[in-house]
Formats: sequence, C-alpha cells, structure tokens
Amino acid sequence: MVLTFAAATSVQAFEKPVLIAEQGSFAAGGTVVRSDGSFNYRVPSDQSGQSLHGDHAYVFYQKPAKGHKYPLVFLHGAGQSAKTWETTPDGRDGFQNIFLGKGYSTYLIDQPRRGRAGQSTAAENISAATYDQLWFSNFRLGNWPDFFEGVQFSKNQEALNQFFRQMTPNTGAFDENIISAAVAAVFDKSGPGILVTHSQGGGPGWLAAIKNPEIRAVVAYEPGSGFIFPAGEVPEPLETTSPFGALAGREIALEDFQKLTKIPIVIYYGDNIPAVPTAEWNKDNWRVRLQMARLFADAVNRHGGDAAVVHLPEIGIKGNTHFPFSDMNNQEIAVLLEKWLHEKKLDI
Amino acid sequence: MVLTFAAATSVQAFEKPVLIAEQGSFAAGGTVVRSDGSFNYRVPSDQSGQSLHGDHAYVFYQKPAKGHKYPLVFLHGAGQSAKTWETTPDGRDGFQNIFLGKGYSTYLIDQPRRGRAGQSTAAENISAATYDQLWFSNFRLGNWPDFFEGVQFSKNQEALNQFFRQMTPNTGAFDENIISAAVAAVFDKSGPGILVTHSQGGGPGWLAAIKNPEIRAVVAYEPGSGFIFPAGEVPEPLETTSPFGALAGREIALEDFQKLTKIPIVIYYGDNIPAVPTAEWNKDNWRVRLQMARLFADAVNRHGGDAAVVHLPEIGIKGNTHFPFSDMNNQEIAVLLEKWLHEKKLDI
Repeated sequence: MVLTFAAATSVQAFEKPVLIAEQGSFAAGGTVVRSDGSFNYRVPSDQSGQSLHGDHAYVFYQKPAKGHKYPLVFLHGAGQSAKTWETTPDGRDGFQNIFLGKGYSTYLIDQPRRGRAGQSTAAENISAATYDQLWFSNFRLGNWPDFFEGVQFSKNQEALNQFFRQMTPNTGAFDENIISAAVAAVFDKSGPGILVTHSQGGGPGWLAAIKNPEIRAVVAYEPGSGFIFPAGEVPEPLETTSPFGALAGREIALEDFQKLTKIPIVIYYGDNIPAVPTAEWNKDNWRVRLQMARLFADAVNRHGGDAAVVHLPEIGIKGNTHFPFSDMNNQEIAVLLEKWLHEKKLDI
Repeated sequence: MVLTFAAATSVQAFEKPVLIAEQGSFAAGGTVVRSDGSFNYRVPSDQSGQSLHGDHAYVFYQKPAKGHKYPLVFLHGAGQSAKTWETTPDGRDGFQNIFLGKGYSTYLIDQPRRGRAGQSTAAENISAATYDQLWFSNFRLGNWPDFFEGVQFSKNQEALNQFFRQMTPNTGAFDENIISAAVAAVFDKSGPGILVTHSQGGGPGWLAAIKNPEIRAVVAYEPGSGFIFPAGEVPEPLETTSPFGALAGREIALEDFQKLTKIPIVIYYGDNIPAVPTAEWNKDNWRVRLQMARLFADAVNRHGGDAAVVHLPEIGIKGNTHFPFSDMNNQEIAVLLEKWLHEKKLDI
C-alpha cells in the first residue's frame, strides 16, 4: 500500500522540480460580529462583549521563480475545498502542480464557511448524511454502481476512496454574496489575475469579477448555479428530471452585468451531457446547466463581451466527468486552458 | 493595504527560493459508514444503501530536492488547522517554510473533522459563539485587552485579525482515537519521520506514536490535554482556576506506554506560565499543563525513555505565547528544534 501510493505520486509529481520563490497563506475578507455587553476577563465563558471573526476565505499561494505576470486564483465547487485542485484522486498532479510547472503563480481558495475557512458567523447543523452514491452519479462518474463507458476516472478503488474523502461540509450556509466578497478581497492581495472556478463556485465567481476589476478573466469549469442576467433578460427556468429541481437564472443590474463584458470568459463542460431531456437525472441535471451557460454567454456577447462555452466532446475530448481538471486527461485539459490564456494574451 | 501585506510577506518568504521536487495532498485513514437498504439510482435523495467516507486526515506535503531523510509531520491544536504552521499572523514564514528552507520534507495535517478533513461520520452542531477574547487570553497573548509585556506577538492590528481567522471549528466531536489512527496512517504514506504536535494535538500525538513505529520522535509544543500514564501511575488531577477545569491524566496499558520509551521526545512551553497557583486563569491553565507534562516526562524516563521538557524562559527565551512556532522569535525556536534533531541524529 505504501509503496503503491508513493510510486503513484512520485512518478507524476512535477515533470522536473519547481523553484518556488515564495509561498504562504492568509485570510481574506470576512466580517466581525460581537455579542452585546462587555467582556469580563474573569468570566471568559460568558460571550458578553466578545467578538467572532468569520466568513473570510483562506488562501494558500505559491509563486514560482520567473513566473508569468498573472496568477491563477482557484475557487472550488460544492462540497469541495481547495484540495479539488491539488493531487488528483488517482495520485497524479492536479492543476495546482501542472500550472506551477508551467510558470504560473497559484492561489488556492477555501471559500468562507468551508475547509480551513470554517469559522462562520452563522450557526450550522452538520449532518453525517450518507450521500456518496448521489455524488458519484451527479458528478458524472457514472450511474452508480456503474462507471460511464470511457469515463476519464481511474477504476482503482483507492482513487474512488480519495475522491469521496475530498468532500467537506459547509460550516455555515452557502452565501454567494459572502463568498464573492471574500474572493474579491483575495485579488486585493494577489493583484491582477485570472479566476478559475468550478461548479457552484461559478456563481460567486461572476459576482467577484463584478466586484473587483483586478479579476482580468474568468475560466469556469462546469458552473452549476448562480447564472446571472441583466434585468429583463432572465430566461425562463429550465425544467429537468434532476432532484435538484428546475434551474433559474438570476437578475442583476445592467451596469453590473456590463462589467462582465470587459473581460474574456471561457466555460468548459465535460462528457455525458445530452442535448435533449432524459430520465437519467444526473445527465439531465447538467444538460440544463450547459444550456443555461450558453444563454449566459449569449447575453454577455450580446452586450459586447467575449464569452465562449466549450463542450469538450464537441472538440473531440471525450469521457470527462464534472471534474475535467482532475480527470485522467487533465494534462490535455490544462493545455487547452494554456492555449486560451495565450490567445487572450494572459500568459505574459 | 495591498502593498503593506505584499511587502510583509515578500520580504520574509524563504531566504532564498526553494527547489521543490514533489508536492501533493491525500486523505489518510478514516472509515466508511453505510445506511441500511439498497441504493436506488432513481431516488438519489434517499440515503438507503448509500455510504459516507469520513474521519480521515487531510495532508499536504512538500519534498525539497536533496532533503533530509526524515520528514516533519505537523499536527495542529484545538480550533486550528494546518494553517497554524504556515505563514504567521504577522505575515512571516511559519515552520512549514522555515523547515523546507532547512531541507526538511513537511507534511501538514488537518485532523479528522477539522478543516479540509471535515467530512465526519458523526453529526455536529456548529455554534457561531463569540469567543475571540477567551482565546486571546487562553493562548497567552495577554489578558484581554492587554498584551503581556514583552510578548512575542505583533501589535499590528492585521496580525490579530489573521490570528483570529486561523480558527476553524470541529465538524464532528474531537476524538483522540480517530485522530491518532489517522495520524498513524499518515506515516504509512510518509514513511519514517518526526511528529510535531501543538496543544490539543499532543494527546493524539502520543497515541499515534504508540500505534505506528514509523514515528521516530515526537516534538510537542505546549501539549494541553491527553497526558497518558501506565496503569497505577496516573497522578492526581491538578486543580486550577482555569474555567477548563482540573487536568487529569489518563491510564493506558504499560506495554503501550513502553513504546514511548523507544523514541526521543521533547516538549516545549512558552512564557507567562507561573510556578505557583494564580487567579489569572489563563496563566494558571498552562501552569497545570506544564506540571503534568513534567510528570509525563518523568514517567517516560522512569521506564527507560528519553523525554525532556523545555520551559523556554528557563533557557533565556522570553515572551512566547501558546504558539512559539509562529511567534515573532520563531526562527530562534526553529533553531532550537534543529539543534535537538541534530543531537538525536534525526537530521540525517
């Protein structure tokens, strides 16, 4: 076991060693709440007059020597932490290492109320609900217990074990405003850069880009919610057989929406997302999300922006799950992003 | 603000760039629970037959090129995550960077039910209780709102902000057996190495060393609970004015305790810990812990082991809080550890 794992990680970790000039971590954004009254040093168990710092993001960053100008700032999806961008479930390099190897600084965020940014100003009940099989299916590894044919996910049992253990619960309610404020604050510290989001991170990602012009581009892998439209342009909700229910867009002020037209945006979706409704709820769940993403990109472009939706199978890249950046072909997915960054002159 | 922070981190991060040969993350240990019944793909919101993977540790590791043989494996304390070993609250290098710079591989653990290892098999209520001032005092920065005279903690307001935001809640009950099992599993992956614990991590640390002989030494900063003794040798509980109550030792089998006599152990405590009882509850809380640590070391040595307790002010190192490894003099604290590792031939 030890040897197997060591071999699996050693072989793949960095093609050659990476010279790191600087690395560290910090909290960004957040708020402070206070209990009424005044603090009595003698009775510390009394909350009166005491404060709580919460709702910040936690960030770990690394700067390679002689790196590109713009860092990549990564925001995870639902039930995940920054771990999502690190070593893949089958023990290969994730986007953190791949892009460090390509000379990009990386900033990995744990969003407010998740992971190491767990201190929340809102109380929460954490259930120990058993939902591995739901997530296996919804994340499009397959229809449990079957993997999809040709899926880009290792059949090694340990890979699935690691995949399930990546999940980590909310320690306070998911809140797009809180998250987007904290992500915007990360860019105050990182300086101008590129935001890379996954899934549920998509929604707060657009809002963060509206809040902070230091966000010079947004790359969204399989955004799953939080699609925004200018007033009067919100499409009808999209019906689906998914238990997560119909997918609605959300209205924002036109002047805010227009900020998204000032930066390049690219959105990627993986495989096993059909064009027409299906009773396979997990596939159908993503069918409506891909459709809404296209409506969103259309709206951005209609207002003069530069947004593209790439459905990977349409360009010949097959088998991707909901996590293209950690799938077995993630080096190919990274090259695709690298090319896009070059096209948009973001790799200076 | 941006510039201030950037300056504070840039100046201090690595004396010179570090060549990283390999880095990554993984889950170690943990368990799987299952709901009765069988999973129905059509009704994924029904937990029947579904599983939950939880109670594992999360680990991020880095291996410098041409490093020492034994990695340092770090386990945080109560209310903390691995962040505790990263950038200090005032933006300087923590032990992660300092020891990478000295050529040690580092493994930073988020313990089960904390941080990125949040998925717990036990449900939990997270309160948003306001306790900053309690922790400020208990962690011996001072008696809120006053800092202790000469304390090794920056008076910069942002340092205190970062310090408070390091805290992150339990997502399931604290459980020494679960934590020590996961920490032991980390060493199955890291290979032989040195365990470095902080505060509440002390207890699970001793148990992990008993469970896995790959733990070749234990370094404990301010262990706060979980002191173990052989059957028949448990001291009387130590009374204190601390609201955390009297401190008791815990009995374990002699044959288990004897495993601790096979490895070198060093325990460090900082400043503002008096020798005699005091009504200052925060100081008194640590008075009994230091005393119990000495009784523990005595027991280890009585059975033929090699355990030392270093009370830093006694060797002329003044002003340390409960976090000596991130205090303003943490480079000096690191040199102290480096010397001990050399003495014990652990720096090969």
